[in-house]
Amino acid sequence: MASAPPLPVIGIVRSDYSETEHTPVQSSLNRAAYGTVEIDAAYRDGLDGLDGFDYAWLLTWLHRPHREEDPPALRQVPFLLRPQRRLIGIFATRGPRRVNPIGLSLIRLTEVSGDAVRFAGVDVLDGTPVLDIKPYVTRFDRPPGEPRCGWFDEITMADGSTPAGLG
Amino acid sequence: MASAPPLPVIGIVRSDYSETEHTPVQSSLNRAAYGTVEIDAAYRDGLDGLDGFDYAWLLTWLHRPHREEDPPALRQVPFLLRPQRRLIGIFATRGPRRVNPIGLSLIRLTEVSGDAVRFAGVDVLDGTPVLDIKPYVTRFDRPPGEPRCGWFDEITMADGSTPAGLG
Repeated sequence: MASAPPLPVIGIVRSDYSETEHTPVQSSLNRAAYGTVEIDAAYRDGLDGLDGFDYAWLLTWLHRPHREEDPPALRQVPFLLRPQRRLIGIFATRGPRRVNPIGLSLIRLTEVSGDAVRFAGVDVLDGTPVLDIKPYVTRFDRPPGEPRCGWFDEITMADGSTPAGLG
Repeated sequence: MASAPPLPVIGIVRSDYSETEHTPVQSSLNRAAYGTVEIDAAYRDGLDGLDGFDYAWLLTWLHRPHREEDPPALRQVPFLLRPQRRLIGIFATRGPRRVNPIGLSLIRLTEVSGDAVRFAGVDVLDGTPVLDIKPYVTRFDRPPGEPRCGWFDEITMADGSTPAGLG
């Protein structure tokens, strides 16, 4: 179970994943899986208008106490570099063991109802607290051209990659 | 001055903006402006490898006490809809008055040195606390095709738009 974040929680993710090692490392590598954000009753009016968007950013709280070093190491071997055992600075990775364990997942919205947001593309554990939802806006969120993506440009990323599967 | 966030701060933004009303509403609408994140000495090793990326996500803490209603209204008129005075649920907006005032800015990296990250594309005030930096990874962060973007698809967004300029 994740620890309580020091911030208000607007909802909880329901997904089919209960172990980090067997949870796909990125929502975009797991587009065929579906999840739901159950929105706290106090915040449901904030969903008004979200159904007009195809994608959204899910900001989640990823901290799981007693499972990882705390504070986290500033250089880590990302899940995707486990085969190479290469250390990378955490601000050049997308991993969950961060100074502030805030997850950023691009989700495809499939249904926005009064109390829930259903989505495709799952990289978070069941029970993960949600801090915010922001709509994906192409004009804001898509850089022009084909930007350099550092060490990610040197590796192959398979759909469904999990930490366990990466060694 | 922004209030202290309830989370560790990894750095502080230096920008030319000191008033929300005169700060461009999105970094992508202000690509010609430059800013710097001064990284706290304790976290500098986390930058290792970031210089291989052209873009990154800047997660910031946007709360300014006594300036906005707190807690924020769940439906608000976004800056970009001030001319129309249209209310939108906050989870369908990118505005700063949120349950958790965490900002998400796509920045173009121009230089990563030992203690600072220089960037183009500025939508945050001078002195804004930074919670996290994550590299932009096209495979993770770019949805296929041309997704629907809700009410943003119905408006014109001019470069350099500021709240004051929008009425």
